[in-house]
Amino acid sequence: MAFVTEDNLTDLALKRWSTAHSPRLAELMTALIRHLHAFTREVDLTEGEWAAAVEWLTATGRISDDKRQEFILASDVLGLSTLVVQMNHRFSAAATPATVLGPFHIDGSPSAAFGADMSDDVPGTPLFITGRVLDLDGAPLSDVLLDVWQADADGTYEAQLPEVDEARLRAKYRTRSDGTYCVRTIAPRGYAIPMDGPVGNLISGTDISCFRPAHIHFLVDHPGHEKLITHLFRQGSAFLDTDVVFGTKDELIVSFTERPAGDAPDGGTIAEPHLHAEFDFVLQARDEDPRP
Amino acid sequence: MAFVTEDNLTDLALKRWSTAHSPRLAELMTALIRHLHAFTREVDLTEGEWAAAVEWLTATGRISDDKRQEFILASDVLGLSTLVVQMNHRFSAAATPATVLGPFHIDGSPSAAFGADMSDDVPGTPLFITGRVLDLDGAPLSDVLLDVWQADADGTYEAQLPEVDEARLRAKYRTRSDGTYCVRTIAPRGYAIPMDGPVGNLISGTDISCFRPAHIHFLVDHPGHEKLITHLFRQGSAFLDTDVVFGTKDELIVSFTERPAGDAPDGGTIAEPHLHAEFDFVLQARDEDPRP
Repeated sequence: MAFVTEDNLTDLALKRWSTAHSPRLAELMTALIRHLHAFTREVDLTEGEWAAAVEWLTATGRISDDKRQEFILASDVLGLSTLVVQMNHRFSAAATPATVLGPFHIDGSPSAAFGADMSDDVPGTPLFITGRVLDLDGAPLSDVLLDVWQADADGTYEAQLPEVDEARLRAKYRTRSDGTYCVRTIAPRGYAIPMDGPVGNLISGTDISCFRPAHIHFLVDHPGHEKLITHLFRQGSAFLDTDVVFGTKDELIVSFTERPAGDAPDGGTIAEPHLHAEFDFVLQARDEDPRP
Repeated sequence: MAFVTEDNLTDLALKRWSTAHSPRLAELMTALIRHLHAFTREVDLTEGEWAAAVEWLTATGRISDDKRQEFILASDVLGLSTLVVQMNHRFSAAATPATVLGPFHIDGSPSAAFGADMSDDVPGTPLFITGRVLDLDGAPLSDVLLDVWQADADGTYEAQLPEVDEARLRAKYRTRSDGTYCVRTIAPRGYAIPMDGPVGNLISGTDISCFRPAHIHFLVDHPGHEKLITHLFRQGSAFLDTDVVFGTKDELIVSFTERPAGDAPDGGTIAEPHLHAEFDFVLQARDEDPRP
């Protein structure tokens, strides 16, 4: 009877997990075991390092809750989240590229009319974002959902403020019949990822910058087109080229132009100086079989 | 300015994490990123699968506490724990091989004299384990610590019984001057790993047996020799060749011989039929530099 040795162990584990009833689970588990074992052998992992990894994973799970997801943060800073997004959204170069969802999206944001102010009384520099949603041929798309969320002028999201119990700096807009949209909000600030947990602890042992550049999240959804999850980044913002979650893309950097009080981009007037960003989102038609 | 693409992402992540201040951390993190990204690309991971993995990891952390360690269990069933043990204890073929520590060791077990009964009133078939601890030349080693722990006749460990607050089926023995030891206990039963958590959930989608064969844990420690963490398995026990944590080794399978009431293996007498296992542990001298 052949029992386990250092040499045969990986093969035994692969054979065992290839019995998964779902062919896809068998594929995933055997590939995972091959890479995990190869990693372990390659670095000649010590028992102390193994124990530290177990402790780190446990702490990462235990610090996660409804408002904080430390494993997503871990995936983000290792480049894994962006890799998965890229692989799953291989859009035409003419379409607006996707980037990471991030851990701060909240379902069920309130609907907002064209030009409605989603900042309410949150302090900050007024910002209008206007543009159209188009298909790859340049035709405007009407009634497209734009689910928008962002950090405030201190770099803080609603999900990080336990005392907030109504929607803050998030809303669902829709394009008009000519494909135009207008979001009114305040300028967000870049921010550091949470550094008080296991991910921050790991990063603090490196020269990696823990900051993200200033950005606003968009989930753009229209029947018949690929759902687009992306950001708009503020041109000139710090940390654009060192974004800790690998989210920045050239095509998503937009000028936040300074404008004086007076005419506002929504067609009305505004008594304060403000910022204006213009961006057209371009959606790709949904492939019949996007994952052949 | 070059931003992230599907092609350059892995290189960017490697470059970033290679700034870790500890050269070993840089080595570990870059190897981890290489294998994680290669796995992700190879299986063409979907966003739904990525989200399921995040959820599984989080649940695995959140179910772990002082008495339960689901990440160790995950490592065990993937063959990773045994791999790390093998790599870190490449003993001479003449030495007793190591196997996994498992999640049920408790520090601070009480001392027990030669032949003392560590089962107290826990019901089961009496079992004596006798033998010597030797070095590679066959010379007996005196005053060697044998830290012993095991499941009961139902397959349950003290760590799984929250109401138990004193040592149950665990004790620290020592060899006498002639290298002999004698453990008195009850025969353990094989058992299923906990199947009510994320690891059990994963295994239940496969044909993998969730059982371990009957065994007793030993941590054998003597100054100047490699610490030995191992089990003795009961010959003829079910699940020897399908041990869910890949722990079984030929050299660790021992006959539990049935003996009538009368003379006991500790030199005294016993009024009941009982079992007797004989095993000599062979320790390897400690290398000056075991991880060159």
